[in-house]
Amino acid sequence: MVYSEVEKKLITFIQDELKATSLNFIILGLSGGLDSAIVAVLAKKALKGIGLENNLLAVMMPTSSSQAIHMQHAKDLCKSFDIDYSIVPIDDIVKSYFKKDEISPLRIGNFSARVRMSILYDISSFKNGVVIGTSNKSELALGYGTLYGDLACAFNPIGNIYKSELFGFAKYLGICDEIINKAPSADLWEGQSDEKELGFTYKQIDEVLRDFLDNSVTKSKLLEKKYNKKLVDMVVKRYNSNRFKRRLPNIAKL
Amino acid sequence: MVYSEVEKKLITFIQDELKATSLNFIILGLSGGLDSAIVAVLAKKALKGIGLENNLLAVMMPTSSSQAIHMQHAKDLCKSFDIDYSIVPIDDIVKSYFKKDEISPLRIGNFSARVRMSILYDISSFKNGVVIGTSNKSELALGYGTLYGDLACAFNPIGNIYKSELFGFAKYLGICDEIINKAPSADLWEGQSDEKELGFTYKQIDEVLRDFLDNSVTKSKLLEKKYNKKLVDMVVKRYNSNRFKRRLPNIAKL
Repeated sequence: MVYSEVEKKLITFIQDELKATSLNFIILGLSGGLDSAIVAVLAKKALKGIGLENNLLAVMMPTSSSQAIHMQHAKDLCKSFDIDYSIVPIDDIVKSYFKKDEISPLRIGNFSARVRMSILYDISSFKNGVVIGTSNKSELALGYGTLYGDLACAFNPIGNIYKSELFGFAKYLGICDEIINKAPSADLWEGQSDEKELGFTYKQIDEVLRDFLDNSVTKSKLLEKKYNKKLVDMVVKRYNSNRFKRRLPNIAKL
Repeated sequence: MVYSEVEKKLITFIQDELKATSLNFIILGLSGGLDSAIVAVLAKKALKGIGLENNLLAVMMPTSSSQAIHMQHAKDLCKSFDIDYSIVPIDDIVKSYFKKDEISPLRIGNFSARVRMSILYDISSFKNGVVIGTSNKSELALGYGTLYGDLACAFNPIGNIYKSELFGFAKYLGICDEIINKAPSADLWEGQSDEKELGFTYKQIDEVLRDFLDNSVTKSKLLEKKYNKKLVDMVVKRYNSNRFKRRLPNIAKL
C-alpha cells in the first residue's frame, strides 16, 4: 500500500462520514495499542482539515488488570499529537456487576468491552459527537472482538486494512516505536497476547486471509497450498463461526 | 394478520435461527411490557416444540426508577407461562458510572439500556445461549430504541410487526389484559409514555408507516393525504435521521 494515498483516503472518509451525521465531534477509546493510536491520529488530521482540530476526545478506560505501560503509551500519543484525553477507570462499574471473584477473564473482558462502549456512547451524546471504530480487517474477519463492545461504532476507517499492514502505516504516521513494537493485545487480562491466543502471527494469518477473502481461494485450495493446516482451519473456522458479528440480526419475515 | 399463521411462522423462525447458531438456550430481557412478553411466550413455545422447553431465561433488570407494577407483570407472565426468570437490579452499576446527580434521564436511560444488553450477553455466554430481540417494527422504523442497547440481539421475531398489531396478537397468545392495556413505555423514567413522547398514538403512527414503508408512498404524497402534517414530519424525520441504527457501520474502502 502507498501510505500517503491511504492516509488521504482515510482522512477524506472520516470527514465525509462525520459530515453525513451532521455532528461535529469524534470520540474514541484509546487503549495504548496500535489500532486506536492510528485512528486517533487520522481523526485528528481529518478534523484539522475541516477546522475542527479540537473536536476530538480520546478516552482511556482501564481496569485494575490493564497494564500501566499501555496507559502511558496512550498518554504519550496524546501529548505528541495534541489530542485531548479523559481517563474513566471502569473497575467500580465492572465490580458492581461481578460481585464474586471466580469469574473467567473472558467474561470480565467481554463485559468490560461493552461497558467501554456504553461510556463512549454516553460521552458522544453530550459532546454532540460520534464514536469512531478502531477494529482492523484481521480482527473483523476472525471475529476477534466483542460484539456490541469494541466492534461498535458509527464508522470505521481501518476495517479494510489487515493488522500486519498497520505497523508500517503507523510508522509512516509518526506513531512512536514503543506502540508499534509491542505485542498486539486486547489487554483484557495480564499477559494476554493476540498472537499467542490465535496460535499464529498476524503475518501468517493475514497471508491466508488475503487469499481467502481477497482472492476467493476456497478452503480446499488453501490446504493444497503451502499453508499450515492448523492455521487454515483456524482462520476458516473463525471466519465462518463469527459471521454473526459482521451482520445485522435477522428479523422474521411475515 | 391471521394470528395462528403468524404464531406458527414466528415459532419456526425462532427454531431455525437457534439451530443456525448451534446453541440451545434463549435469554431475553423481560420488562413487563407488551413486546418482551410476546417474545417470551413465542420463545417458550418454540423451545417446547424442539424438546428444550426449560432452556429459556427471562431477565428482569430494574433500576430504582422502574415502576414496580411492570416487574409484577413480568413475574405474573413467567408464572402463567412457566418461564424461568432471574432479577438483576442494575442501580449499583449505573450509579458507579454516574456519580453525580444532575444527569439527564435520557442519558441514564440509554446507559441503562446498554448495561442491560451487557448483562444479557454475559448471561448468554455461560448459558451457551443467544439473546433474542424484542423490538417491534414501529420502534425500528422510528429509531425509538437504544443502539447497542435494547436494539442489540442475535435475532428478532417481531421486528416486522407494527406495535399497533401486537395488542391483538398478545391477546391471542393469552397474555393478560394488564400487560396489553397499559400505556406503552420504555420505563426509563417515571411516567414515561411512548405515545406522549412521540406526540401521537401508535395507531396513527403505524398508519403513516404502513403507507411510507410498505406502500412506498413519498412524503409529498403522504402530505396530500388526510394525515396530520406534524405526524408525517415526525415519522419521516425520525425514519431518516435514525437510519444509522438499522445498518452496519460504514468501513472505509481502499
